[in-house]
Amino acid sequence: MRPSGRKLDEMRAISIETGVTKHAEGSCLIRCGDTHVLCTATIEDKAPSFLKGTGLGWVTAEYGMLPRATNTRNRREAAAGKQSGRTQEIQRLIGRALRAGVDRVALGERQIVVDCDVIQADGGTRCAAITGGWVALRLAVNKLLKAGVVTSDPIVDHVAAVSCGIYAGQPIADLDYAEDSEAGTDGNFILTGRGRLIEVQMSAEGATFSRDEMGRLLDLAEAGIARLVEAQKAAI
Amino acid sequence: MRPSGRKLDEMRAISIETGVTKHAEGSCLIRCGDTHVLCTATIEDKAPSFLKGTGLGWVTAEYGMLPRATNTRNRREAAAGKQSGRTQEIQRLIGRALRAGVDRVALGERQIVVDCDVIQADGGTRCAAITGGWVALRLAVNKLLKAGVVTSDPIVDHVAAVSCGIYAGQPIADLDYAEDSEAGTDGNFILTGRGRLIEVQMSAEGATFSRDEMGRLLDLAEAGIARLVEAQKAAI
Amino acid sequence: MRPSGRKLDEMRAISIETGVTKHAEGSCLIRCGDTHVLCTATIEDKAPSFLKGTGLGWVTAEYGMLPRATNTRNRREAAAGKQSGRTQEIQRLIGRALRAGVDRVALGERQIVVDCDVIQADGGTRCAAITGGWVALRLAVNKLLKAGVVTSDPIVDHVAAVSCGIYAGQPIADLDYAEDSEAGTDGNFILTGRGRLIEVQMSAEGATFSRDEMGRLLDLAEAGIARLVEAQKAAI
Amino acid sequence: MRPSGRKLDEMRAISIETGVTKHAEGSCLIRCGDTHVLCTATIEDKAPSFLKGTGLGWVTAEYGMLPRATNTRNRREAAAGKQSGRTQEIQRLIGRALRAGVDRVALGERQIVVDCDVIQADGGTRCAAITGGWVALRLAVNKLLKAGVVTSDPIVDHVAAVSCGIYAGQPIADLDYAEDSEAGTDGNFILTGRGRLIEVQMSAEGATFSRDEMGRLLDLAEAGIARLVEAQKAAI
Amino acid sequence: MRPSGRKLDEMRAISIETGVTKHAEGSCLIRCGDTHVLCTATIEDKAPSFLKGTGLGWVTAEYGMLPRATNTRNRREAAAGKQSGRTQEIQRLIGRALRAGVDRVALGERQIVVDCDVIQADGGTRCAAITGGWVALRLAVNKLLKAGVVTSDPIVDHVAAVSCGIYAGQPIADLDYAEDSEAGTDGNFILTGRGRLIEVQMSAEGATFSRDEMGRLLDLAEAGIARLVEAQKAAI
Amino acid sequence: MRPSGRKLDEMRAISIETGVTKHAEGSCLIRCGDTHVLCTATIEDKAPSFLKGTGLGWVTAEYGMLPRATNTRNRREAAAGKQSGRTQEIQRLIGRALRAGVDRVALGERQIVVDCDVIQADGGTRCAAITGGWVALRLAVNKLLKAGVVTSDPIVDHVAAVSCGIYAGQPIADLDYAEDSEAGTDGNFILTGRGRLIEVQMSAEGATFSRDEMGRLLDLAEAGIARLVEAQKAAI
Repeated sequence: MRPSGRKLDEMRAISIETGVTKHAEGSCLIRCGDTHVLCTATIEDKAPSFLKGTGLGWVTAEYGMLPRATNTRNRREAAAGKQSGRTQEIQRLIGRALRAGVDRVALGERQIVVDCDVIQADGGTRCAAITGGWVALRLAVNKLLKAGVVTSDPIVDHVAAVSCGIYAGQPIADLDYAEDSEAGTDGNFILTGRGRLIEVQMSAEGATFSRDEMGRLLDLAEAGIARLVEAQKAAI
Repeated sequence: MRPSGRKLDEMRAISIETGVTKHAEGSCLIRCGDTHVLCTATIEDKAPSFLKGTGLGWVTAEYGMLPRATNTRNRREAAAGKQSGRTQEIQRLIGRALRAGVDRVALGERQIVVDCDVIQADGGTRCAAITGGWVALRLAVNKLLKAGVVTSDPIVDHVAAVSCGIYAGQPIADLDYAEDSEAGTDGNFILTGRGRLIEVQMSAEGATFSRDEMGRLLDLAEAGIARLVEAQKAAI
Repeated sequence: MRPSGRKLDEMRAISIETGVTKHAEGSCLIRCGDTHVLCTATIEDKAPSFLKGTGLGWVTAEYGMLPRATNTRNRREAAAGKQSGRTQEIQRLIGRALRAGVDRVALGERQIVVDCDVIQADGGTRCAAITGGWVALRLAVNKLLKAGVVTSDPIVDHVAAVSCGIYAGQPIADLDYAEDSEAGTDGNFILTGRGRLIEVQMSAEGATFSRDEMGRLLDLAEAGIARLVEAQKAAI
Repeated sequence: MRPSGRKLDEMRAISIETGVTKHAEGSCLIRCGDTHVLCTATIEDKAPSFLKGTGLGWVTAEYGMLPRATNTRNRREAAAGKQSGRTQEIQRLIGRALRAGVDRVALGERQIVVDCDVIQADGGTRCAAITGGWVALRLAVNKLLKAGVVTSDPIVDHVAAVSCGIYAGQPIADLDYAEDSEAGTDGNFILTGRGRLIEVQMSAEGATFSRDEMGRLLDLAEAGIARLVEAQKAAI
Repeated sequence: MRPSGRKLDEMRAISIETGVTKHAEGSCLIRCGDTHVLCTATIEDKAPSFLKGTGLGWVTAEYGMLPRATNTRNRREAAAGKQSGRTQEIQRLIGRALRAGVDRVALGERQIVVDCDVIQADGGTRCAAITGGWVALRLAVNKLLKAGVVTSDPIVDHVAAVSCGIYAGQPIADLDYAEDSEAGTDGNFILTGRGRLIEVQMSAEGATFSRDEMGRLLDLAEAGIARLVEAQKAAI
Repeated sequence: MRPSGRKLDEMRAISIETGVTKHAEGSCLIRCGDTHVLCTATIEDKAPSFLKGTGLGWVTAEYGMLPRATNTRNRREAAAGKQSGRTQEIQRLIGRALRAGVDRVALGERQIVVDCDVIQADGGTRCAAITGGWVALRLAVNKLLKAGVVTSDPIVDHVAAVSCGIYAGQPIADLDYAEDSEAGTDGNFILTGRGRLIEVQMSAEGATFSRDEMGRLLDLAEAGIARLVEAQKAAI
């Protein structure tokens, strides 16, 4: 009944390949079905100026999409001269999500920039970026720990994300592009490895929803996140 | 126990004054405590180009804040040369929320632009913008109905929004700025007049949250929205 | 004979309401007929860098117009990505005018930013902004005096502005939008409370003018400014 | 007593060389003392879109300054990514002034763009641009008349401009940079060949002024403009 | 003697993997040593407006680099709000090079956009982009031929590029980043499959060069290009 | 056989007038036939920040074209809000070329900015800018030497540039616009006074070229540069 032929709660095949670029302190290529996102983490010795002298660190994210990552070519944002509202909204979300899993005192007054660039898109790019971005972040932090620059682990838990939605009246997990386009309601769920909620964003796209439906999507999300966290563990 | 001295579920005083500018097809000044937002609705004969020939209408929103609406002056976005990511995120949210209450077939191939400009800010500006923006929209649509340009009412239900959060471990409704700055978790809830959910955005700001806490915030939101919808009814 | 029905030298009804926002050091909402401008003054501890070490203060202004302040909606300048030439010209004028009434030595090395945002426009917005901006500035300076931060009053005189023009061959005072659109010549006159000239800008819009006509417009302006200064005195 | 050693009413040496670029329909290099401005007029077959179908023509102007036209190098506006408020204000003024001397019905539905680029600056660049820009415009219109494209002369009169100011308490004509920097009040006067006023812009720069002083500056301006108009006549 | 340990005329290992994204009409990932560039070709039904009605096609290119493709992170151009001069120069070069191998009459009035995004950089990215871009172009054109949209092959020859330079007084082929940073002279050579020259760009970086040195670099380039063309043939 | 009627190896008339603006430390107006470029050199006490503390100087260039320097008017880049890719490419080339003739240790930690503004264009503007820019640079450096600020001459040799191309199958020197538009291959050659190569840029525009043709263009360029260097010597 799903365009993808998957069962209602079936996630797409997940693959996380680490160490994919030689320059970044941490990197991975995450594939959630046909959605492929290259994530790199860069350690910077200075925290942003608003944190100067506080001893607190910062994690931020930037998001981009190659022009032909999608079915029809999108205009390159660098050529357009600005990032779209959608891009800014997504990269703010990724940064917020990753920070929720970090002890900023333990990190110390430095910044880690996580770049998430979509190589190929098929729905759920922001969720893949969060799940993969966490792996890149984890690997970069490992370098800090190994080098003794940081002594107590600033990563407090896994962070992963999945989108779930109501498609043809049924709650389904891990929407691909075809499913996302048709879903009446759709949500992004970001959770920790222990199942605590970091961010929930549910939105009616055509049909409003009930508290009950909200609960059923959360059920799917919790199960899906567990799978993603396993994949993260296997990768690092 | 709240900085504002309000009870946990107590909303701020709401006032909605309509017809505040002589030019706009619909307008109101909404005051939620010390948060004051001027909302205007402009009817445009043409829908955006991506709807050409579809017969469908569109509702969109723009959001702004006067430089000294806040405690310290913010740089004017027009002078900075771009809208911030925050501004774009908010205006996309307002537009999405209002469209969820509109029958775009009944509206016909035209556009209504809702401008929400914050005159004075004290937390919850996006929620006030949605609640007040709906009133401006309602008044503009009334003009279309009265003029016979539109024959079936395109407004299918009220749309209103409130922010709720966890403050010092307790769920509280309708956060002002002081409460919002300290809240561990905070969420924006957009509902219809009949209590259906349009958008839920919950975000951990310092502390992750549980499904149970999520439910208690939803309870507060449902009660608060009912109050806001009453105020909308009284205004129009 | 005037579209507004006013006598040739009749000013519009003036109202100046102070203390309209809780955050700004000085604020007012000035209404000249249907032209409504919200003015706020912000005190900043630092003067612009070109004054560093001079002991001199600075007063500057920014001007904006809500998108639907006018009969048809204007594109939001923040969305367009820049301030129009008209906006820049107006805000430079307001700043220059207000500085002419300030003793910058007495002000000391700090800056006051006056924001003038047009809520509703019906001609003469720059003049209303100057007249109202002066009130906001006066109130902010009062705070500095009261706090003892500044000991000698940096405000040397009132500053107010009015537009006058030649309509259907006759000199008229305080043009509204309908009159302004049809005027052959139109001018903005900025004077001090004692009647000294700060700025005169007269421009042929369709018909050139003579020295004699210039004199008659100045006569009207002097009378009008006296009325505006009275309103300023009443407000503070 | 003037830094330049000139008498109070003495203009700088004026030279207007025409035909200085082979491509433009009209061109001249105007030299007012050490202020040198290259003016070109370009005829475009189409009027701006807001005039479509009206039969009316348009004259517009753009103003620029080479980075090292001044004593210290200014940042190139193309590199800065925008025209300054000053540049926009000046080019709007030049366009308005030139249009005041044109019969837009006789011109027909086409546009003439006058580019004024300051090669070397020593005060009064906007006035030189207007005086020289009129010559370039005149020459371009001559081509239209010669070619029979336009049958009735759209140029109704000369347009020229001069700056005058109060320096050390004395009214002086045609300020150079050193005088302009020290002047307490300074004004730009744009007149027709017959001595009608097109635009008067007087501004207090440090000292307010009286109606009497205003009159004395106008006297100087009328005499100066007569000299400039003679130079225009000699050039064409 | 080379930092890379390669012989003077030794090229880096070349690998060209095709079909790397499911959406693009043609795509490849080219690896020249540690320089990895993802190239996609997009077919657009319309040619640019300056070709309207001419029957001629167009090939253009865009170039980008992921922020962490390099040893230290570069600011994302989309966030900076513009493409650097370097980026623009490179993408203009790629487009010009690819067009030199295309019969634009045979292509017909359509456009092919080749996007070259550097995933990992180690010198010679523009050359790798040209060599890989040609493969993506070739594959996209094959689709047009297969579909019968184009009947005569618009690709007239291979196009490939290599950089050569003078390092420590010796001519060397296919510079990596370490070599490029130290080279006194360095050049980019773009040739066809038959060895005709398309573009030669040689530049003294520290030391000027002689005609004889120029000849020796061209010898290296011809041999290197032959190797690249073999790799192209193997890939398609 | 050339549109210009010149012999294959005949250069255009060259004139270099120095001291054309009173403000710049060095300046000239170079005329190569109908291509006229105004070049100024500005000495700045500070080097760019990337050189701080190195003791090395810097020479950079900016390039611009007046809107009506060409046959049809180009949009002013300052109004368009950015410099085109072509402009950036040219100014990077000019800067690189001039630096190749400068001993940056001898210059000391300061910057010289060379502005090249095209007053009238008829092909070869970037070459004229380099040849004239060198003269402005030479004159500015002479001031530094005369003032004793710099003790050893940082100018190590002349730098001049010429374009040559293949027109109707024949190699020709110093292309004007008409020739450039029709040339199948065209190249820019930058050489020192002693005939060493600084930069060679050859590009197939319609027809690829052979090594032999490349050699014949270089022969023409060497002869042409010798003429330009003579003109430089005569000017300074």
